[in-house]
Amino acid sequence: MKPDVADLKFGHIFTDHMLKIFYHKALGGWQKPEIIPFENISLHPAAKVLHYAIELFEGMKAYRGVDGRIRVFRPDLNMQRMNLSAKGSGLPTFDGMELIKTINKLLTIDQEWVPHSEASSLYIRPTLIGIDGTLGVSQSESALLYTILCPVGAYFSGGNESVSLLADPSYTRAWPGGCGDRKMGSNYGPTIRVQKQATSQGKQQVLWLYGDDHQLTEVGTMNIFAFYVAENGKKVLATPPLNGLILPGVTRHSILQLAQEWNEFEVVERILTMQDVIKMQKENRLLELFGSGTACIVSPIHSVDYMGTEIPIPTMEHAKPVFRRILDRLTAIQYGHVEHPWAHIIDQE
Amino acid sequence: MKPDVADLKFGHIFTDHMLKIFYHKALGGWQKPEIIPFENISLHPAAKVLHYAIELFEGMKAYRGVDGRIRVFRPDLNMQRMNLSAKGSGLPTFDGMELIKTINKLLTIDQEWVPHSEASSLYIRPTLIGIDGTLGVSQSESALLYTILCPVGAYFSGGNESVSLLADPSYTRAWPGGCGDRKMGSNYGPTIRVQKQATSQGKQQVLWLYGDDHQLTEVGTMNIFAFYVAENGKKVLATPPLNGLILPGVTRHSILQLAQEWNEFEVVERILTMQDVIKMQKENRLLELFGSGTACIVSPIHSVDYMGTEIPIPTMEHAKPVFRRILDRLTAIQYGHVEHPWAHIIDQE
Repeated sequence: MKPDVADLKFGHIFTDHMLKIFYHKALGGWQKPEIIPFENISLHPAAKVLHYAIELFEGMKAYRGVDGRIRVFRPDLNMQRMNLSAKGSGLPTFDGMELIKTINKLLTIDQEWVPHSEASSLYIRPTLIGIDGTLGVSQSESALLYTILCPVGAYFSGGNESVSLLADPSYTRAWPGGCGDRKMGSNYGPTIRVQKQATSQGKQQVLWLYGDDHQLTEVGTMNIFAFYVAENGKKVLATPPLNGLILPGVTRHSILQLAQEWNEFEVVERILTMQDVIKMQKENRLLELFGSGTACIVSPIHSVDYMGTEIPIPTMEHAKPVFRRILDRLTAIQYGHVEHPWAHIIDQE
Repeated sequence: MKPDVADLKFGHIFTDHMLKIFYHKALGGWQKPEIIPFENISLHPAAKVLHYAIELFEGMKAYRGVDGRIRVFRPDLNMQRMNLSAKGSGLPTFDGMELIKTINKLLTIDQEWVPHSEASSLYIRPTLIGIDGTLGVSQSESALLYTILCPVGAYFSGGNESVSLLADPSYTRAWPGGCGDRKMGSNYGPTIRVQKQATSQGKQQVLWLYGDDHQLTEVGTMNIFAFYVAENGKKVLATPPLNGLILPGVTRHSILQLAQEWNEFEVVERILTMQDVIKMQKENRLLELFGSGTACIVSPIHSVDYMGTEIPIPTMEHAKPVFRRILDRLTAIQYGHVEHPWAHIIDQE
């Protein structure tokens, strides 16, 4: 019997096995993948990952479909992004399709850990770290790519868990000429203190601003979307463009594609500033604000605390919000209610 | 017999012992320090350090004085900075004087590893990592503070190893509202690709610029100093101010203090832009550019490649350069040629 994941905290329970693939430049590069019982990792105390944050990761999910088959959502996009992160970190790149196949083997071995429930899924965490045991800020000539799995409950279930945000322009997550568009560990460590600040002010997440005009960039570890009525009266779904400050989220990309297919409102990638948000909110044109990411799919926002003022966001006040429609469509694909090429079905031997 | 360190690469050989101190919030905080044989560190695969770069470090050096006694250079300043880095990372702070005492015990045990040579020293690397084995970007409630030691040759010996720099404004190291003034791992991972770029263009180090006016901020992993003749004819030693983008270097601070004591030229903390450098160089008023840091003490610069133009810097062309005078004074203190309160003598039992 596997644990009942409905009440589990995210990322606390792991499955029985893990995948490890070493890279040693001196031995010709990538070594043979090993699927082994879940165990601690032994590192040289000077390993570059422990000093210089030469590290990156991905997040994907495996879902148990209504037909009992296991589906992984768009892993090809995660593999592309993981290779971009590797380049940003001076770590070796790899054949993404080969890694997917190897992760699928791991999923097949631990398949009973994919919850038999539409309220939960199995989170997949591929991780790549630089393990050279030498001090000095330089490229790591050896690396470890490993993957661990953990069953997770629905991040978002009842539809009522909207969040409050702290938008404090004195903190910056990413900037031009940096690596804010890669899923590198270095983007996360510096956010802990800001998240603490938000929590201490009674807010649940951080809304990351950038620039003198206080552009909205991301929310917590998610991309951000706004759904609003433009001055010309047309409805618009907008998210910031991939200008180097924004993580190219797989859920973000999928939402843009879905909304474009629906062709019922305008879909744009544009800069949104806090002044835009304030103006639209005052004129009752701002309909919804929500985050998007693998962990939550979508996360509606009900307020933004900005420069000492609480801005209420009416995301939860509509009968048929767009965020809910997106969530329904994506979960229908993920749990196999509809067949869709974004759901990669795993052949369970 | 210990290895002859004169020819050793920085950070490749370690001593026989290491120091480990665990922190477990659930067990009341910091645990008893352990000095143990040098060994690998065993980490949960979800340890926060491996995913979210919840990690920071320090660099100090122990020197074998001409009297045979071991001296550590201003460890109190490193402890202050390490606690600032811990706050920036959401990691626990600690009593810096207690850690110095414990590191001194480790140094006493491994004292024969402090080279009997003025061309080398024993590098001390205190490291603090978040070790909670849970996914999710949040504060780590357990941590490991460890210290390893490695004998290193003189980074700078003959006085002729001046370096060439690549100054490319398309890369940015630090940003207002970030953590560029803390010695956190997250400041280093994203620099690897830029250092690679410099190397591929035949340059040895990166000169990090900031802002539309291309301010000089740091060089490689060092602070930067300029020695020049101001428009009023007076000589000036300048380094960028601690405005949040600059690591508060112990060597930087010591150089400012020494030069102020000398009282022979003006000593200022000011913004220096590439236009300032170009103008001063053209008018033959720029005398020296050099980096400063624990590893090298000072590192003279002979050229800067900026926007496709090679700017020659005459640092090495003076009979009695300031960088050399600073180096001589600091090494005299470090190796005990003069008694000075900056050199903390360790009582070897």
